Order: sequence, then C-alpha cells, then structure tokens
Amino acid sequence: MDETTKKSVLRMFTYGLFAVTATHQGELSAMTANWLSQASFEPPMIMLAVEADSQSRRVIEAQGAFALNILASGQRELAGQLGRASARKPDKLAGIAWRPGPTTGAPLLDDALGWLECRATGSLPAGDHLVFVAEVVGVGLNREGQPLTMAEAGFRYSG
Amino acid sequence: MDETTKKSVLRMFTYGLFAVTATHQGELSAMTANWLSQASFEPPMIMLAVEADSQSRRVIEAQGAFALNILASGQRELAGQLGRASARKPDKLAGIAWRPGPTTGAPLLDDALGWLECRATGSLPAGDHLVFVAEVVGVGLNREGQPLTMAEAGFRYSG
Repeated sequence: MDETTKKSVLRMFTYGLFAVTATHQGELSAMTANWLSQASFEPPMIMLAVEADSQSRRVIEAQGAFALNILASGQRELAGQLGRASARKPDKLAGIAWRPGPTTGAPLLDDALGWLECRATGSLPAGDHLVFVAEVVGVGLNREGQPLTMAEAGFRYSG
Repeated sequence: MDETTKKSVLRMFTYGLFAVTATHQGELSAMTANWLSQASFEPPMIMLAVEADSQSRRVIEAQGAFALNILASGQRELAGQLGRASARKPDKLAGIAWRPGPTTGAPLLDDALGWLECRATGSLPAGDHLVFVAEVVGVGLNREGQPLTMAEAGFRYSG
C-alpha cells in the first residue's frame, strides 16, 4: 500500500470540528475532535474515535459519558486551543465559558452552536485510537449557525 | 429530550458522501453512506455505521470486508442512485462502471475520486445500525478533485 496515496485518499474525507469534553471526580478533559459521526437514529447514537493514549480517553472511559459541542464557523482559534496536548496545557478550558451538562456533568461550551450529552454503550479498539459508541441522552441548541468544518479551519487530522 | 432540538443539533454535523460496496459469493451490495470516518492512523482504520436491517450489512458481514468509494463534487445523481433501497433496485450497480478491488474483490467505481478497501476487525451494535471497525488494506487514487458533501447534495441522513 503506497503511503502517499493512502494519505491523499484519506484526506479527501469531509469532516466537521467538535469539542469533546468529559469529567470524572473533578478532573476535566477537553479535546478537539473530527473523527465522529451519528451512528443510529433510534435510539440516537454517536460513534467517536479517541486517541488510545490520551487523557480524554481515560476520563471518558472513567465517566462512561462525554459531551459533543458543535463548533461554529469562525471558531478556528477555539478549536486550536482545545486541540493542544493536555500534557502541555493541562487546563484547556481556562478562560472558556462553560457549564456542566444537566445529565452527565460534562462541560458544555457557551459559544458552541449546540451540544449533545452521550453515554457510552460500548467501545472497540481501533489501532492507535479507541472507538466509543454512545447513546445521546441530552441535547441543547444554543443558536442557529453554520458549523466549523476541517476545510474551513485548514486543520489536518487524517491520512 | 426534545425531538426537534435533537434533530436540529444532529443535523449540524458535517458529512461527506461515499459509496460503500461489498461482495460475497457473487452477490453485490452498494449503498450511499455518510456515517463514517477514519478511526486510526496506525494501522489506518475506518469506522462505518450500516443500517442493521440492510442487504449491505449482510454482505459486508459475510465478506468481512468492504470498499469505500469517495464520490466527487457533482455526483449527486450517482449518490442518489446508490442510495435507493436494494429491495426496490436490486442491481444498483447496473450501468455504473466498476472493477473488483485487487485485495477484497469489493466493487471500485471508476468515477470515484479514490477508494479504500477495508477488512472488518470488529463490530458493535448501535441501535438501528451496526458499527464496523475496519483496517484499510488497499487504496487507490483515480484523480484529484473535490469530494461530494452532504451539504452540496442537499441530502439528509441524520437527526
């Protein structure tokens, strides 16, 4: 398999940009994510791939839940801030307005277009990531607007 | 959970449009898909949600493999053709140029921008869908170009 071709083809995938948050025993995690999708209509479910060796994976697994915050067009800087490695920026939510989700306590960002609270129902190893499958247990719309896409942000997390 | 809010928020997700194909013992399956994403860099892996009660799910499970064909901007009609229920259109690939994938035999569409052959490594039930996790075992680029997105096609498969 040619490495260059593989990267070129995988980079043709279309993605949005989200902030995924979780909390467990006072510890907060926040990450920028694009490897996710709806996975079921009834009940509404989500699938999400999280780096296996990350704080977010650990906190999501411990909590058994997470929140998806839908970033808005224009929020490239916010996405970049939440995308930094947690080891180098332990309190990624500092200076960002948020409140605990009513159902799970996972952080909901005030500036996101909307949010989903999700409770994990299973997970599968996938190489250097872990795939969570989760049921949507709470939802809120902050405002109408266009979502931030990977294409707009010019970020690269694929290939 | 408010049904209207849930739909509005889930419809803020950004998606591309793909043709997912598989073959088993002479039977071909083809579907339009948007609920998928890369799931690992090393090895390269994909996650894909397929309607639990569909021909594609059955053929993919029997073959243990599938191909992802990346549709190009302007191919809305092709996406619509492959998106019809297989019961009403049994031979969805009729009139569409394709060849068997070198590694899996799954149909590769000549007009797609590129393709990935994927071998399933696991699956998880997700409500009315099944989530496959699969390793990329073959890849090819037909041509450069912009991918077809759900936003461009104006299709709706979320909410």
